[in-house]
Amino acid sequence: MKERIYNFNAGPAALPQSVLEEVRDDLLNYKGEGLSVMEMSHRSKTFDGIIKDAERLMKEVMRIPDGYKVLFMQGGATLQFAAVPMNLLAEGQSADYINTGAWSKKAIAEVKKLGKQVNVIATSEDENFSYIPGTFTVTPDAAYLHITSNNTIFGTQFQTYPDTGNVPLIVDMSSDINCRRIDVSKFALIYAGAQKNMGPSGVTIVIIREDLLERSPDNIPTMTSYKIIGEKDSLYNTPPTFGIYVIKLVLEWIQKTGGLEKLEAINQQKAKILYDAIDKSDFYRGTVRPDSRSIMNVPFRLPSEDLEKQFVAEALENGMLGLKGHRSVGGIRASIYNAVPLKAVETLVRFMEEFEKKNG
Amino acid sequence: MKERIYNFNAGPAALPQSVLEEVRDDLLNYKGEGLSVMEMSHRSKTFDGIIKDAERLMKEVMRIPDGYKVLFMQGGATLQFAAVPMNLLAEGQSADYINTGAWSKKAIAEVKKLGKQVNVIATSEDENFSYIPGTFTVTPDAAYLHITSNNTIFGTQFQTYPDTGNVPLIVDMSSDINCRRIDVSKFALIYAGAQKNMGPSGVTIVIIREDLLERSPDNIPTMTSYKIIGEKDSLYNTPPTFGIYVIKLVLEWIQKTGGLEKLEAINQQKAKILYDAIDKSDFYRGTVRPDSRSIMNVPFRLPSEDLEKQFVAEALENGMLGLKGHRSVGGIRASIYNAVPLKAVETLVRFMEEFEKKNG
Repeated sequence: MKERIYNFNAGPAALPQSVLEEVRDDLLNYKGEGLSVMEMSHRSKTFDGIIKDAERLMKEVMRIPDGYKVLFMQGGATLQFAAVPMNLLAEGQSADYINTGAWSKKAIAEVKKLGKQVNVIATSEDENFSYIPGTFTVTPDAAYLHITSNNTIFGTQFQTYPDTGNVPLIVDMSSDINCRRIDVSKFALIYAGAQKNMGPSGVTIVIIREDLLERSPDNIPTMTSYKIIGEKDSLYNTPPTFGIYVIKLVLEWIQKTGGLEKLEAINQQKAKILYDAIDKSDFYRGTVRPDSRSIMNVPFRLPSEDLEKQFVAEALENGMLGLKGHRSVGGIRASIYNAVPLKAVETLVRFMEEFEKKNG
Repeated sequence: MKERIYNFNAGPAALPQSVLEEVRDDLLNYKGEGLSVMEMSHRSKTFDGIIKDAERLMKEVMRIPDGYKVLFMQGGATLQFAAVPMNLLAEGQSADYINTGAWSKKAIAEVKKLGKQVNVIATSEDENFSYIPGTFTVTPDAAYLHITSNNTIFGTQFQTYPDTGNVPLIVDMSSDINCRRIDVSKFALIYAGAQKNMGPSGVTIVIIREDLLERSPDNIPTMTSYKIIGEKDSLYNTPPTFGIYVIKLVLEWIQKTGGLEKLEAINQQKAKILYDAIDKSDFYRGTVRPDSRSIMNVPFRLPSEDLEKQFVAEALENGMLGLKGHRSVGGIRASIYNAVPLKAVETLVRFMEEFEKKNG
């Protein structure tokens, strides 16, 4: 049996090895209770403890202030693209969106699909989404401003978050949640598919300021209603229990690692050695404007597509998976989420140097 | 460490032990690929094989004829309560529903919530949902007839399915899918949360006749659109990959066990010895009309609520979990899904006899 691989997948992505070991050890018999977490009633005392722990740990790890609720939903960011306007964009209102690429585009398209009004107040489409727009004016009476904090495909990331005054700031944080400390009080709503930094796919984390819960209209599907899911503490129906359990373990791992302060430092270090390797070379070429670079997804190009193919194949032979860029942009992309260890990035950088020597 | 318990949970519920063992053994390193299924890209060749296998196995096990698609969605039956009318109940049309208790009620409420027209053409509410209505008239121009094949809470089950002529028959089969052979060609759409007979919670299986896919309007959320999810073979966005993997293993287990013919025989046998034990006793009392009894959920009462409490507690001491009736009806409920072995039911029946001797 091969060793564990270095996993640079963009998502679903690497999980901490110690988390997977705990999942494995308890798989048939959770804490001596004689059954798997997958086989437990979502109304059992044990699962209630798990989901409450997950919520509490989210609040601790992210330092979420009072007045916010943590929800566990389903359907990924894609369902949130619809849920946000269904809950929060009333008839006659419009919402502001910043377009930083594929995911923002999908979020915008979903609002239009529902027949609602969107103002795209900034976009970086002019330069193939290689930067985060710096200047824009928030529409004073917008229902909210929606941004994508990190673009997984293009490798861009908001370095700071815009000040939106009275306009609620809503962020799709799917690919960089808990990669660094943030001031949650700046946000009205944060959502994130779990499958990059938090756990397996199939759970969406929603952090919502409680006053927004009242805005949900009654005539939307129950499973999209923040109000109903909030009132029932994410237990209106059977939630994805196993995924929530893994999220709880990942949050415990974050705490054991030293919390977001420590993780942020490690993530900065990982990103730095990778960007430094790109910048010092004439062989590798970064595609993102330096002030907009993501510390989670690092895309770069080689002199030719043939060399890129060869790079991906040889990296795999050397125990590094998932380095092919997204099919819509090509090139190389290294996703270096929380669970990707420093050693993996160091190994990649050494491989890059050797590859350049042989092929440069 | 305690042994594995006999698990009579109503859902999430028992899974086959051999499936859990395989999940455990491959948890950190799936088939020597060096990563967990949870860490795999949903666009990888390996996961593509898993989801295609799951779809193929569903078709084989259920003998689904050509012209149907198997989809893997999220949000449980609750999201389907909305998705069905959003996709298939056009403006100006109405849909027929049969009300056999809690789940039907929720399905009906969701249609009304969306401002659409429901005809409740039959209900067993007059006798606390203790039977399946036998006579009803389908509205000739109804968009569809919706039924709940098995009521998990009340322990009723359709023994045969109604002939609806040209009106499409739609069924929520969450709690009895694959408990027996059915003629899929009678149905326009079958949906089921996975967490009873098929796998962990967080995946909804949808089997849809392909001609219905065209009916989805464009102005509904992408994640509720059968058309879009169908066109993308359940990979429009990141699906709940791990849950789909477990479903694949459960389907393989069904085939190894001898398919639905064999499972149906075992399920009939399990139900028979339990109902026989109830019927021959004056101490235990079944709550469902014999012609409507479920072979998946067997509710019964004891002479007093105190005895019921004692029964549940002593059963747990004897290694049997999940026997408390649903909070809305009380009493005892033994859920005896596919993965609950005959031995578990035999053990329960022996315990019932001893309990009666001591307390009768």
